[in-house]
Amino acid sequence: MSRVLLILNTGSSTIKFALHGEDGQARIAHGLIDGVGRAPRLILHRAGEVQEMHPDFAEDAGTEALIDWLLTVLSDALGPMEVVAAGHRVVHGGREFAAPTQITDAVMAKLRRLCPLAPGHQPYNLAGIEAVARHWPGTRQIACFDTAFHQSRPRVAQLYALPRALSDEGILRYGFHGLSYDHIAGRLPDVLSERLAQGRVIVAHLGSGASLCALQGGKSVETTMGFTALDGLMMGTRCGQIDPGVVLHLMREKAMDADGLERLLGRESGLLGVSGISPDMRDLLASPAPEAAEAVALFVHMILRQIGALSATLGGLDALVFTAGIGEHAPEIRARVMDGLGWFGLVPDAAANQAQDTVISAPESRVVTAVIPTDEEAVILRALLALTP
Amino acid sequence: MSRVLLILNTGSSTIKFALHGEDGQARIAHGLIDGVGRAPRLILHRAGEVQEMHPDFAEDAGTEALIDWLLTVLSDALGPMEVVAAGHRVVHGGREFAAPTQITDAVMAKLRRLCPLAPGHQPYNLAGIEAVARHWPGTRQIACFDTAFHQSRPRVAQLYALPRALSDEGILRYGFHGLSYDHIAGRLPDVLSERLAQGRVIVAHLGSGASLCALQGGKSVETTMGFTALDGLMMGTRCGQIDPGVVLHLMREKAMDADGLERLLGRESGLLGVSGISPDMRDLLASPAPEAAEAVALFVHMILRQIGALSATLGGLDALVFTAGIGEHAPEIRARVMDGLGWFGLVPDAAANQAQDTVISAPESRVVTAVIPTDEEAVILRALLALTP
Repeated sequence: MSRVLLILNTGSSTIKFALHGEDGQARIAHGLIDGVGRAPRLILHRAGEVQEMHPDFAEDAGTEALIDWLLTVLSDALGPMEVVAAGHRVVHGGREFAAPTQITDAVMAKLRRLCPLAPGHQPYNLAGIEAVARHWPGTRQIACFDTAFHQSRPRVAQLYALPRALSDEGILRYGFHGLSYDHIAGRLPDVLSERLAQGRVIVAHLGSGASLCALQGGKSVETTMGFTALDGLMMGTRCGQIDPGVVLHLMREKAMDADGLERLLGRESGLLGVSGISPDMRDLLASPAPEAAEAVALFVHMILRQIGALSATLGGLDALVFTAGIGEHAPEIRARVMDGLGWFGLVPDAAANQAQDTVISAPESRVVTAVIPTDEEAVILRALLALTP
Repeated sequence: MSRVLLILNTGSSTIKFALHGEDGQARIAHGLIDGVGRAPRLILHRAGEVQEMHPDFAEDAGTEALIDWLLTVLSDALGPMEVVAAGHRVVHGGREFAAPTQITDAVMAKLRRLCPLAPGHQPYNLAGIEAVARHWPGTRQIACFDTAFHQSRPRVAQLYALPRALSDEGILRYGFHGLSYDHIAGRLPDVLSERLAQGRVIVAHLGSGASLCALQGGKSVETTMGFTALDGLMMGTRCGQIDPGVVLHLMREKAMDADGLERLLGRESGLLGVSGISPDMRDLLASPAPEAAEAVALFVHMILRQIGALSATLGGLDALVFTAGIGEHAPEIRARVMDGLGWFGLVPDAAANQAQDTVISAPESRVVTAVIPTDEEAVILRALLALTP
C-alpha cells in the first residue's frame, strides 16, 4: 500500500489536488475538478497522461460529495494507498493563525467562526478538511492560511480608521494570496540575489484575483487586499477599491441587500463589468472594442496607483515581481506597468519581456523586474513535510 | 444704499458668510452661524469688532430660516444694502458643471437631482440659494462646485471598476475640495515658481475633511476622494478608504442599514473612532494615550500611502503643499509626513516647519514643500466678479 501526501485547494467552483510520495519528492498525480455545483468534471494528470471523468451522481452535488468521489477515483486509479497527511489551503486564519496549523476539533471550531469573514471561500475550504476526515479518519491534516504571511505587517497596515471596538472584534485588513507570496519570497534569493531578496520588493499577484504585496527582508509589510478579497486592485469580476459611499448609495437608491451587493461587486464588476465583454484578460487584449481597452487601461492604472502606495510604505523600490495567470502570461500588461514606472528608474527589457524571460528589466534598471511562476501547492507541501514526523 | 456681493458656504452644521463691496475689494463683514439645528449662534466680524448673536426663534430652525435671519441681521447692522450678486459653494456639480454657473430654474432642478450623491451636503447648499432668492428675488446667484476642479482628470481617474451601466448613470469618482485646490493652484506660481507650478505637485488639504490632489500643469489629474467625501484619507470622523466587504459584513452580521452605516463611517470613525478620544488633531497630539498615538500614526500612514499612489499617477513629485486646518497649523503632522518621504529626496527644514514659514523644505530638497493657507471664499469671490457684469 503506497503512502502518500494529499494536497487540496478547495474553492467554490474548483477543487485542485495533488498526490505526492511520502517523502514529498515525486508528484504521483495532480489535477482538478471544475464546474463544482454545475457540471463537475475531473481532470486527472498522472504518469504523463490526462484523463477526464464525470461523476455519475447529481450535477449539483456539493464539495464534500465531490471530494469523496475524487478520493475513490484516486484509490481506483492508483491502487490502495494510505494518506499519511493532507494539507489544505484555507483562506482565512483570522488574527490567531500565523503559521500552518494541524487540524484539531478546537482548531476547526475556530476556523468555522471565521466563515462570516470569507463566506465565499472559507466554507469550501473547511468542507475539504471534513471530507478527508470522513474518508480517512485520523489522518493528520494541516491548514495553510492565505492570511498568515501578512501577519508580519506593522499595526498601521492592519487597521482601518474605524471605531476601535470594530478593530478589536477583528474588522482588520488581513490580506490574502499569502501562500503565493510565501512561495515567491522563498524564490527571490535564487532568482534575484540575496541582497535584493532582503530589499524593498513588490510582488504583483495578477490572476483572476489580484493583489500586491510589499516585502521587506522577505516579509510582508503591506498588501492591497483588506478585510476581504474584494479590496485593492481591479480583478476579473471584482471591483477592487471603491468608495464605501457607493455601497450606501446602492442600498438607498436601488434597495440592494448584502447578497445583491456581493454579487454586483464580486461577480459582475472588474474587467467583466467595465468591458461588458469578459473577465478574462486574454479576451480583452484580443478585442478591438474601446470598452475592452478602457477596462485594460483601468486595470493598469489601479496597479500603478497601488505600486506607488506600497513603494511609499517601503520607502522606495528595489525589485518588482510579476506572478499568477496575468502576471506570468501577459507580456503586454507587464510592459504597460513597467512603462508607467519609468519615473522610478525602471528600464524594461522589451525583448526579454516578450520572450517570457525571468528577468525582464534592462541591466541598468534601478528596479530589477522579474517574472516568477507562483506555486501555492509547493508551500502547502513544504508545510506538510515540516509538520509530519 | 450700499451695493454688495454676498458669499455663502452653507453646510449641515455651519453657515459661513462674507460681504464684499461691489468691486470685490473691501470685505465689509464676515462670520458664521454654527450649531445649526441644535443651538445656533451667529459670530459677526465687522469693522474690527466681533459680535455674538442668538436668534429668538426655535433652536431647531432649519438652514433657510437661519439665512433669512442672517440677512435681516446684516441689513440691520450695516444699513440698507442691495445684494448685487450672491456666490455659493455647492458640493456637487455632477458630470455637467465644470465651472461656476449662474443659477436658473433649470440649473436648480439639475442640482436637486444630485442631492442623493451628497445627501449630507447638497441639500444645505441649495437651501442657501433658495433663502437668498426668497430674500432678494431676482438677485444674480452663482454656484461654485467642489467637484468642478477635478473634471480635468483623465477618464481612468474618474472610473470605478464597476459595471458600465453604473458608471453611465454617474457612479464615478468625482473628488471634492475643488475650491480649495483651485485657490492653491492659483497661488503656486507666486509661492513656488512658474516652473514648479506647472510641474508635478501634490496638495494635501488636511482639515476635518481631508484629501489629496495631484496637479500637473496646474490642473487636477487625480484625487483621493471619490463618489462621496467618505473615501481616501482618514479624517476627523470619516473612515476614508475601506474595503467594501466591511460594509457587507456590517450589513449581515450587525443588520446595519444605510443610515446606521453612514453614521458609523461618516461620524464615528476616523481620528475619533480609532482614538476613542477626539476627532480633533490638537487633542490627539496633546494626549499621552496610546490610542491617540495610534490614531495619529494611522492618519500619517494613510497620507503617505496616498502620496505614493498619486506620485505614481504623476510619474514623480516636484512639490508638496500643505493646506487647511491640520495642514496649516500642525507642524508635527507635516514633519512626520515629510520624514516619510525622505526616500523621495524630500529634505525637511525643521526650523522653517516649526516657525510656520511658507517653504518648509531645505534648499537641496528634491521635493519643494510649502504651506499655503487655503481660501475657498476667494475662489467664489473671483467667480462672482467674473460672472457679474
